[in-house]
Amino acid sequence: MIEPMQCTGYLMRLLALYHIISFISFSRAEARIRHYKWEVNYGFQSPDRYKKLAITINGRTPGPKILAQQGDTIVVELKNNLFTENVAIHWHGIRQIGTPWSDGAGGVTQCPIQPGESFIYKFVVDRAGTYIYHGHYGMQREAGLYGSIIVSLPNGVSEPFSYDSDRTILLNDWFHKGTDEQVIGLSSIPFVFVGEPQSLLINGRGKYNCSLLNTPSSEPGLCNATNPECSPYVLTVVPGKIYRLRLGSLTALSALSFEIEDHEMTVVEADGSYVEPFVTRNLYIYSGETYSVLVKAKQNSSRNYWISANVVSRKPSTPTGLAIFNYYPNHPQKPPKTLPPAGPLWNDTKSRLAQSLAFKARQGFINTPPLSSDRVIVLLNTQNKIDGYYKWSLNNLSFTYPTTPYLIALKNNLTDAFDRRPPPDRYDFANYDIYSVAKNVNATYSNRIYRLKFNSTVDIILQNANTMTLNHSETHPWHLHGHEFWVLGYGLGKYNMSSDWRKYNLFNPIMKNTVPLHPYGWTALRFRADNPGVWAFHCHIESHFYMGMTVVFEEGIDKVGKLPSSIMGCGETRNPYI
Amino acid sequence: MIEPMQCTGYLMRLLALYHIISFISFSRAEARIRHYKWEVNYGFQSPDRYKKLAITINGRTPGPKILAQQGDTIVVELKNNLFTENVAIHWHGIRQIGTPWSDGAGGVTQCPIQPGESFIYKFVVDRAGTYIYHGHYGMQREAGLYGSIIVSLPNGVSEPFSYDSDRTILLNDWFHKGTDEQVIGLSSIPFVFVGEPQSLLINGRGKYNCSLLNTPSSEPGLCNATNPECSPYVLTVVPGKIYRLRLGSLTALSALSFEIEDHEMTVVEADGSYVEPFVTRNLYIYSGETYSVLVKAKQNSSRNYWISANVVSRKPSTPTGLAIFNYYPNHPQKPPKTLPPAGPLWNDTKSRLAQSLAFKARQGFINTPPLSSDRVIVLLNTQNKIDGYYKWSLNNLSFTYPTTPYLIALKNNLTDAFDRRPPPDRYDFANYDIYSVAKNVNATYSNRIYRLKFNSTVDIILQNANTMTLNHSETHPWHLHGHEFWVLGYGLGKYNMSSDWRKYNLFNPIMKNTVPLHPYGWTALRFRADNPGVWAFHCHIESHFYMGMTVVFEEGIDKVGKLPSSIMGCGETRNPYI
Repeated sequence: MIEPMQCTGYLMRLLALYHIISFISFSRAEARIRHYKWEVNYGFQSPDRYKKLAITINGRTPGPKILAQQGDTIVVELKNNLFTENVAIHWHGIRQIGTPWSDGAGGVTQCPIQPGESFIYKFVVDRAGTYIYHGHYGMQREAGLYGSIIVSLPNGVSEPFSYDSDRTILLNDWFHKGTDEQVIGLSSIPFVFVGEPQSLLINGRGKYNCSLLNTPSSEPGLCNATNPECSPYVLTVVPGKIYRLRLGSLTALSALSFEIEDHEMTVVEADGSYVEPFVTRNLYIYSGETYSVLVKAKQNSSRNYWISANVVSRKPSTPTGLAIFNYYPNHPQKPPKTLPPAGPLWNDTKSRLAQSLAFKARQGFINTPPLSSDRVIVLLNTQNKIDGYYKWSLNNLSFTYPTTPYLIALKNNLTDAFDRRPPPDRYDFANYDIYSVAKNVNATYSNRIYRLKFNSTVDIILQNANTMTLNHSETHPWHLHGHEFWVLGYGLGKYNMSSDWRKYNLFNPIMKNTVPLHPYGWTALRFRADNPGVWAFHCHIESHFYMGMTVVFEEGIDKVGKLPSSIMGCGETRNPYI
Repeated sequence: MIEPMQCTGYLMRLLALYHIISFISFSRAEARIRHYKWEVNYGFQSPDRYKKLAITINGRTPGPKILAQQGDTIVVELKNNLFTENVAIHWHGIRQIGTPWSDGAGGVTQCPIQPGESFIYKFVVDRAGTYIYHGHYGMQREAGLYGSIIVSLPNGVSEPFSYDSDRTILLNDWFHKGTDEQVIGLSSIPFVFVGEPQSLLINGRGKYNCSLLNTPSSEPGLCNATNPECSPYVLTVVPGKIYRLRLGSLTALSALSFEIEDHEMTVVEADGSYVEPFVTRNLYIYSGETYSVLVKAKQNSSRNYWISANVVSRKPSTPTGLAIFNYYPNHPQKPPKTLPPAGPLWNDTKSRLAQSLAFKARQGFINTPPLSSDRVIVLLNTQNKIDGYYKWSLNNLSFTYPTTPYLIALKNNLTDAFDRRPPPDRYDFANYDIYSVAKNVNATYSNRIYRLKFNSTVDIILQNANTMTLNHSETHPWHLHGHEFWVLGYGLGKYNMSSDWRKYNLFNPIMKNTVPLHPYGWTALRFRADNPGVWAFHCHIESHFYMGMTVVFEEGIDKVGKLPSSIMGCGETRNPYI
């Protein structure tokens, strides 16, 4: 039975679909194929003055920016020049409709690309907006493998806000230890955590204080305080003009607060969707999120200002990440004499929650969610020990990869490739105390996945809890592949199944692909399982991801087209050639 | 036409074959299957007191010793637990008759084993002797992935020499920089060489002088001079007894001179074959070689003695590698008060050449070579530049890997997997001056291979030359997979095709799988192309191997059995599954 409100919802969705189709048709007329040839290599880089091996694309980190127009087809021919390591790249925020094998989630949608081999990622960028890409195998993102994807509107279509120019600003945290060493620590007894990053990078530039090394002489050139490579990023503005800053966070660990000294920002886009503009002095940005903010160069133009990124949510021990907001014609490198913004209190969860709640879809661009869902999956996020090792679990299952990627295993009916039992949709609401130190004595490893009815509407309730440390709960930025979801609500404490759904914003929720789960809080999402494929949903913190904080969804596998043989070669798809 | 002497050769070979067959039949009665389960992991190790990430097998480097009896089948189930790196292990000295896919040469005989995957190496150890195994993908051997294989005689068969006990001694050089960093240097303009090793290891133990670090405080525990892990290897002997030391060198770079203070050694085995015993104070051992020496504990038993390894052939800047020859009941750790043997002059090429020439096959165990060969391949070893990069070449071709391993490409007729043109059997004898700085302006990359007529007899003349540095020629230890070869002769200077064959020892040459090519010298080998498969032949120095110092032989590919699908999954064998 279709009830009136649901009916309105359907009509609005139809209308939205009509709009999308018109856009696509429109852009198709102009659509181009954009070819990129990339080589992935190790190289010495000193993004924060400290020299270390980083993974680069065509010699650079961050990698090349992809600039495209809505409806364009992106073709990236990726050559893996690493010596012994495989690689895979995820196009974060691109839904890969019809091309689930190009999602780049190593182990989920493809076998990784082996040394010496090339792989062609080919996909359509079907929505204008600000996106990112990054390594999705091992911790290669953290090693420097990332960049931005900027998709412009079709010709003749304009943004619902005006600006004079746009700039892309990628934020990252940077660790001096290699990822192999980090992984060893994470998988050791006792557990060894890499700790806080040595610096924060803005567009690949940071500033590590070389004198912090006890060992300035250990290796000539190891840390060069005057390395010109490491001059801060400069954003030059002409007084009076409005700039659209396209922000993306690729941090391995850190939640950040971004600000521009003495300048307000108007937030207009989040993860590729327009948001009802709101003005703020600082924008909280979690790993995997993208935003656009408008900034008017309206302050005293006789000086420069700081652009700053500060760690929040974890007690910071990393200096503020800095860039220069340079008023033309001041010297671009002239640092402001003022102190950089110190950022909000790191542990002001309420302020972060308030900003999360402040986001609404933009008037005129509201994509109304279905008013109810077909299935509700509640995921209790806990830290726990399995066989003495620290892990993260969802409903007591800590994710591990099967050797055969799910997309291949499911499409080719390799029934023994992973555990076919469904993982639980619930945790023990009645008895689990989210404020107590997690015990989870029954937690186990699992490679089970959630199989969703095609075109069904699915709600995800992410439920946070105490970690294994007293009075401690962390922020988890959850990222969904292959979809955008409606963000229905956030709350603190234990989600109440019988009442908290009443707090949902079903009128003008924003759509996102990455969303924070706040300490001791809950976050409710809704999405349509309408994209045939297999899609990872995981915490975007590299170490949490490694430690099992992932679930996988399958939907419409029977509607997936013929898989390219280039995604195979591992697990059960080692070639039975003869 | 079969001439009388050739006929004798044939008869003797037949006789030898008969002996082998009897041995196999004999041992088959006793043959066992020996199962090993190995996990390859990164782990922090301090073999020389300096803590670094090493590749381990079941947590150790060197890895487990394989102990077997002639005729046994070895089954190693290898699980790759590395995070992002593939792996492959070569069973160095094992001919892999009938199992060429188990040779472990990544890119030649198999696709590498991917992270999370397991691979089963299964092969027969068909000859008693001292062998080694090691990583054969990237530079993973240098990262710690190596060990020994000791194959005993069948029951009832005894060695032609007597001893009371045997011990295995693996020699290695050890670098503190990671292999990725080394590779970056080797493939950079300007070229950056890692330089000499920080220490020499005897059975995985060395002694780096922590005070050499400018930065003792850089990281707590980075270099711990009192780390008990790093106490030297102790060989405890009972006065009057005779010990068989089974030596193997796995060095990445260094040629070594091995000695035991005040003790003579009698060399009795080389690369699995008996040699006519000869007595020496020092044994030169090149990377990839194995030897057995007999040592009698006949000195003053009231003290301990040094076991030492010194770098030769390159100007050493690495301290002597030390272990303790401990006379029972002295305290095992009590260091001798004497100075350790300093070893011979590093640049005494003549002494090394003389020792190479001193080896003869043992009376009664002579395997006479064919008196003539069907084909002579002369390989000029040169250093050169290609596109500005330093490389090593054979006859002006610097080896690069195709993405599809040769064994698979040839067996499955993948005709475009590599360049099918034959590489040259000759260089420009008339005009090439081996004493001049190499120019090689025409050197190119190549993945061409030598295709040998099955069962033909092939001679290889390795011809050394000047490098790109004035008055400089290096030592190259050449290793052949899948065979043992007769070492027909060594000489200095340019090999003379019309006369130097007269210097060959065709009466009692030793058989080996690894042999040095001395500076400005030549080395002549002969082998029967009688093992169906595809076999690498390369310089065993890791960096030279990386820089192209490899050729590949194919023989009897049509006689190779069905390839296991587990060796596939890369290049053109990514699975066309559907």
